[in-house]
Amino acid sequence: MSRIDGRNHDELRPVKFTRNYTKQAQGSVLIEMGDTKVICTAMIEDKVPPFLKNTGKGWITAEYSMLPSSTQSRKIRESSRGKIDGRTQEIQRLIGRALRSIVDLDTMGEKTIWIDCDVIQADGGTRTASITGAFVALVDAVNILMENGTLQKWPLKSFVSAVSVGIVDGKPLLDLRYEEDSKAKVDMNIVMTDQGEFIEVQGTGEEAPFSKNDLMELLALGEKGNAELIKMQKLVLGELADKLQNIREE
Amino acid sequence: MSRIDGRNHDELRPVKFTRNYTKQAQGSVLIEMGDTKVICTAMIEDKVPPFLKNTGKGWITAEYSMLPSSTQSRKIRESSRGKIDGRTQEIQRLIGRALRSIVDLDTMGEKTIWIDCDVIQADGGTRTASITGAFVALVDAVNILMENGTLQKWPLKSFVSAVSVGIVDGKPLLDLRYEEDSKAKVDMNIVMTDQGEFIEVQGTGEEAPFSKNDLMELLALGEKGNAELIKMQKLVLGELADKLQNIREE
Amino acid sequence: MSRIDGRNHDELRPVKFTRNYTKQAQGSVLIEMGDTKVICTAMIEDKVPPFLKNTGKGWITAEYSMLPSSTQSRKIRESSRGKIDGRTQEIQRLIGRALRSIVDLDTMGEKTIWIDCDVIQADGGTRTASITGAFVALVDAVNILMENGTLQKWPLKSFVSAVSVGIVDGKPLLDLRYEEDSKAKVDMNIVMTDQGEFIEVQGTGEEAPFSKNDLMELLALGEKGNAELIKMQKLVLGELADKLQNIREE
Amino acid sequence: MSRIDGRNHDELRPVKFTRNYTKQAQGSVLIEMGDTKVICTAMIEDKVPPFLKNTGKGWITAEYSMLPSSTQSRKIRESSRGKIDGRTQEIQRLIGRALRSIVDLDTMGEKTIWIDCDVIQADGGTRTASITGAFVALVDAVNILMENGTLQKWPLKSFVSAVSVGIVDGKPLLDLRYEEDSKAKVDMNIVMTDQGEFIEVQGTGEEAPFSKNDLMELLALGEKGNAELIKMQKLVLGELADKLQNIREE
Amino acid sequence: MSRIDGRNHDELRPVKFTRNYTKQAQGSVLIEMGDTKVICTAMIEDKVPPFLKNTGKGWITAEYSMLPSSTQSRKIRESSRGKIDGRTQEIQRLIGRALRSIVDLDTMGEKTIWIDCDVIQADGGTRTASITGAFVALVDAVNILMENGTLQKWPLKSFVSAVSVGIVDGKPLLDLRYEEDSKAKVDMNIVMTDQGEFIEVQGTGEEAPFSKNDLMELLALGEKGNAELIKMQKLVLGELADKLQNIREE
Amino acid sequence: MSRIDGRNHDELRPVKFTRNYTKQAQGSVLIEMGDTKVICTAMIEDKVPPFLKNTGKGWITAEYSMLPSSTQSRKIRESSRGKIDGRTQEIQRLIGRALRSIVDLDTMGEKTIWIDCDVIQADGGTRTASITGAFVALVDAVNILMENGTLQKWPLKSFVSAVSVGIVDGKPLLDLRYEEDSKAKVDMNIVMTDQGEFIEVQGTGEEAPFSKNDLMELLALGEKGNAELIKMQKLVLGELADKLQNIREE
Repeated sequence: MSRIDGRNHDELRPVKFTRNYTKQAQGSVLIEMGDTKVICTAMIEDKVPPFLKNTGKGWITAEYSMLPSSTQSRKIRESSRGKIDGRTQEIQRLIGRALRSIVDLDTMGEKTIWIDCDVIQADGGTRTASITGAFVALVDAVNILMENGTLQKWPLKSFVSAVSVGIVDGKPLLDLRYEEDSKAKVDMNIVMTDQGEFIEVQGTGEEAPFSKNDLMELLALGEKGNAELIKMQKLVLGELADKLQNIREE
Repeated sequence: MSRIDGRNHDELRPVKFTRNYTKQAQGSVLIEMGDTKVICTAMIEDKVPPFLKNTGKGWITAEYSMLPSSTQSRKIRESSRGKIDGRTQEIQRLIGRALRSIVDLDTMGEKTIWIDCDVIQADGGTRTASITGAFVALVDAVNILMENGTLQKWPLKSFVSAVSVGIVDGKPLLDLRYEEDSKAKVDMNIVMTDQGEFIEVQGTGEEAPFSKNDLMELLALGEKGNAELIKMQKLVLGELADKLQNIREE
Repeated sequence: MSRIDGRNHDELRPVKFTRNYTKQAQGSVLIEMGDTKVICTAMIEDKVPPFLKNTGKGWITAEYSMLPSSTQSRKIRESSRGKIDGRTQEIQRLIGRALRSIVDLDTMGEKTIWIDCDVIQADGGTRTASITGAFVALVDAVNILMENGTLQKWPLKSFVSAVSVGIVDGKPLLDLRYEEDSKAKVDMNIVMTDQGEFIEVQGTGEEAPFSKNDLMELLALGEKGNAELIKMQKLVLGELADKLQNIREE
Repeated sequence: MSRIDGRNHDELRPVKFTRNYTKQAQGSVLIEMGDTKVICTAMIEDKVPPFLKNTGKGWITAEYSMLPSSTQSRKIRESSRGKIDGRTQEIQRLIGRALRSIVDLDTMGEKTIWIDCDVIQADGGTRTASITGAFVALVDAVNILMENGTLQKWPLKSFVSAVSVGIVDGKPLLDLRYEEDSKAKVDMNIVMTDQGEFIEVQGTGEEAPFSKNDLMELLALGEKGNAELIKMQKLVLGELADKLQNIREE
Repeated sequence: MSRIDGRNHDELRPVKFTRNYTKQAQGSVLIEMGDTKVICTAMIEDKVPPFLKNTGKGWITAEYSMLPSSTQSRKIRESSRGKIDGRTQEIQRLIGRALRSIVDLDTMGEKTIWIDCDVIQADGGTRTASITGAFVALVDAVNILMENGTLQKWPLKSFVSAVSVGIVDGKPLLDLRYEEDSKAKVDMNIVMTDQGEFIEVQGTGEEAPFSKNDLMELLALGEKGNAELIKMQKLVLGELADKLQNIREE
Repeated sequence: MSRIDGRNHDELRPVKFTRNYTKQAQGSVLIEMGDTKVICTAMIEDKVPPFLKNTGKGWITAEYSMLPSSTQSRKIRESSRGKIDGRTQEIQRLIGRALRSIVDLDTMGEKTIWIDCDVIQADGGTRTASITGAFVALVDAVNILMENGTLQKWPLKSFVSAVSVGIVDGKPLLDLRYEEDSKAKVDMNIVMTDQGEFIEVQGTGEEAPFSKNDLMELLALGEKGNAELIKMQKLVLGELADKLQNIREE
């Protein structure tokens, strides 16, 4: 049985990164995974949240939002409702944790890097695309701190990417589109480093419980997908990717 | 004295419209006026606000927002603050009024067209660019209603565009960039139709009052700018622009 | 064609200022323009908003509200809704800008003057009446700062007043009552100084665009109305008006 | 020991009712008790809250607010804070209960009477003045329903008034001014009918407990004050007061 | 006529205090009055609200909440509504005032004691049970401050308890259950000290006014009920109760 | 290396269920896992959310809250802040999903079962204890619907329980206490059925990525813990557990 867009079960959609997509943020990347498009930016602020004041440590925090026009039936703005819904909160907490996990906050100095992921078109996998794209924006922002001498040492410990997997019609699939996602019995988001380690594993079988065997297959798909995404991040980062790797190996 | 980007005092920045910028909305346009970039979309909803129920009339409403990364120092999300600030409210009310003024709401049927203007990069004139871009998105959305037979008659009565003008260092200028805008003593937004009539004139001399003569010069600049913008709207709308004009002349 | 209350097209309603209307505020004025009645007060606070701290500058800010019983069908309190609606925000921003424009904030010291405009009865033109009345309250409050020696120099640069004009049944009218306002195709608020300069011009043709000629006629009415209002402000301020003028002429 | 304004311990301040103070509400009264001034209005709405739908019963609800300029240091608007504070809620619940207690809601039909009490100048006793003034506004509003034939029978069962009493410097006092109130060890609000019955008794000894004897003295003062206030309500209501009494006696 | 649970008109329900009900708070008491069950805790925080900074004084503040499952039809959480309703505000202000009235805040040092009253099962009289239980938790918390030497002197001036009384079917009753409370024409909460003095008297006759004689009978029932409750507080506090009394007598 | 409370690395804390803990809810259970204590209730409401109207389907939704006194430093109420924080939203979404996953919503009829989990004492693992306890309350509530004939068929498809696991000082541990949790590099919540299938797996390595091997060890601990918890649920449910199992096997 082939997928709606003819992909194999373990095949990613076409991925494209556009660096320097807008000019105000220190890092600004448009990531496209098929029809899912997210503007990921990284902006540096010279202060930290209250709980980090006078610790010398830095912080990374993320916000996520969908444009009202990003979905087929218009999504009401959270500013109009006056509150951020649970799904958004879950996603921005996930993005923030994922990026903090690969940064040495201790050597960043008292700075906050704000990650903003704004979905301009949604077709499944927006939260995982956000993480994958935001990492590239983060590297660009940190590079500015390196180049202008604010930082002496790259505070990034790994690459990080994320991908969704799920079981649709009994079959494990990599990188679900919206149409697949809405039929999935099990849905999992997997965040990994370039060393093949896990940062976050979130699997939910709301419609039906899943067996340990299912879980193993999904993890394997996630490992494959993330390995490919990180390869693409390295490609698009070019020299910066090399720098990052060299420094780590020292 | 020349302007920071070498333009004449009565010269617009380069303007670019990208139609069908995203795929979910019925109309979706990226408008660029120099470095100001706004995604303008029009989405059709098959119901109207309570005050129009059972009247057979339609409605057009607009929302405006700036991405946090659209400005040099990160703009806090209104959803995080839990409320929409006064400036945003003013702007979205202006956009809504401008578009409603050129639509025959009586013949639209009980539908709402949602206009969303999301600024992805800001360099002055975002509210006027929003109006100019949103009109093009609106035409595309209405065209779908014409093509699928929902509407029998074009409900659009005019083209509409908007431009900012102001007095900077004593000199009237057309289409202010952010740097100019922040030094302007007088600031005016002018919304006009293709018949050269005014829909909205909003001039403010917070820093210094302005004379009637100043006012006349600013209006003249606004007339010139809007005439050029509407010419560009016609160009980008092509056949649709012709249809619109023919119908009006009948 | 005569108006509902028999006025000429260029005639103001009867205007009445009651100074010292309440006792707690430094300036407190009841302004009546026909049946529109607004309590305008000015209160001095010995601090400034954060963005002005340690600049030595002062600030003027305005709030506007309508009593629930001021309108024919009861207006729901904004405190009950939990938010300030867009119209109110627009109006209080307008009042604030208008008053700041004629004050030399640099010489005021780090003080905020709070202007409150509370409409106790509404019959059209509440925002323009608020500006005209608030100016008188502001003069009284500033006078206290002069008399007790806090200020050495009058920081007021001009008188300021405001009036509404509009086109009703094709005819330009000065100072619209509610019944006229609700039928107006074009609606404009004009804020001016006693030197005949403009501070704010806000014209809207939501129902129908207006020609440049219409605009000129409306501006002329606004000039006439404001000149008369400022004459009345001078009358009611008596000696204080003279002081203000003398100082300016020095 | 005499009081700051020379009154006896059991003496009310000068009381003044101005009926028809504004024109939009069905009942509109300015009550002045010394320097405390409250606009009390009653507006009729042709629907009831959800819990009364299809019961044939009516409802009375009250809202209370202080103008920012009513107090010596400016009171921040509750609409600006985005919420109604505890004190305001307590007061508007008290006013609503007091008025509902003397109305036969069963014979009112499915109508809500909105009572609004807006303090324009505060000098102690604003909540009790609100009740006393609101009753007069309520009578005027109900009278309209009687006169236009909506109601066949007066639904008012009693007159109602309220007054504050307290112990200041060890001495029980009637009708406290702000300066007295802020020094009071015990503070009590007493709401009564013209038959000398109690509707509400709220006594608080936050600063110091009070004895049963204190309580008795305060109740006696409250009875005296309310009897006088109701006499004044009858005077100002004139014929309407007679009607009300006759009907009750039938 | 006997009561639903066979009690005499002047009889309390069975009362039970469980001290140290949970382990995190400095004082933690489960109070049961019949089927009404409230967890009352006292937690010490080493700072005071802004208005007490640098005064050397302490503060006591209370919060009250009902679990959604405490009432027969599920009570919507106030956090879900986004605001605290009027009844809750009234109750927590009452609890706070009651406890502050018997504490010498001047000798407490700059500390806040947070009183939390969380109703886990409601059957009438939750606010009065909260006060009675919270006092015991407060004593335990203060005792910790005495034992660890933070305080040198007991800052508690009296015992405090509270009870509800009301008139049901024309008969004054002590300690109303929910079923009685919902039929009561008059409802009164009485807060008293162990010296037989009143701290708060709140009586409401929303359904029907009450006579002075009714009031006297209700006060007598309240005195009886509070005397019994304070006896039980002393019993459960044991040695601590003695300490408290001895110190006061010195 | 032994754990702070002497447990083995794969040992649960003492678990205790108290059924019928309060009387108003249809199901009410106090679950204690060591010092973590949560009141879990299930209440039946005869309506469904709008998206299920007229579908014949039922719904289960969960809310979670911590009493201010449940944690060592007092937790500010979400009702006081006016919003529900991200963590709470995440948890209540998790509890809701977990319970819905084992219920046949199609055969429930148009009913909502409200699950409330209120933490009265917190020592780690409150969200997993909530799920484990809430399941027992849910069975009791559903049993009432069976007994009164509202339901003809048990809609429960499995037992469900949850447990936390984590890596502390390099060692995988089952059922973390707060002190362990705050030192854990990896933290995972595992929700399972009595058939040994997974409903939710949420693992986070914010402090450090984890290997596939770590993941396997944690899953094994989770399987062991959940098997034991479900055994205890069966014990406490007694006959009801048998009924549930019999029906499933038919």
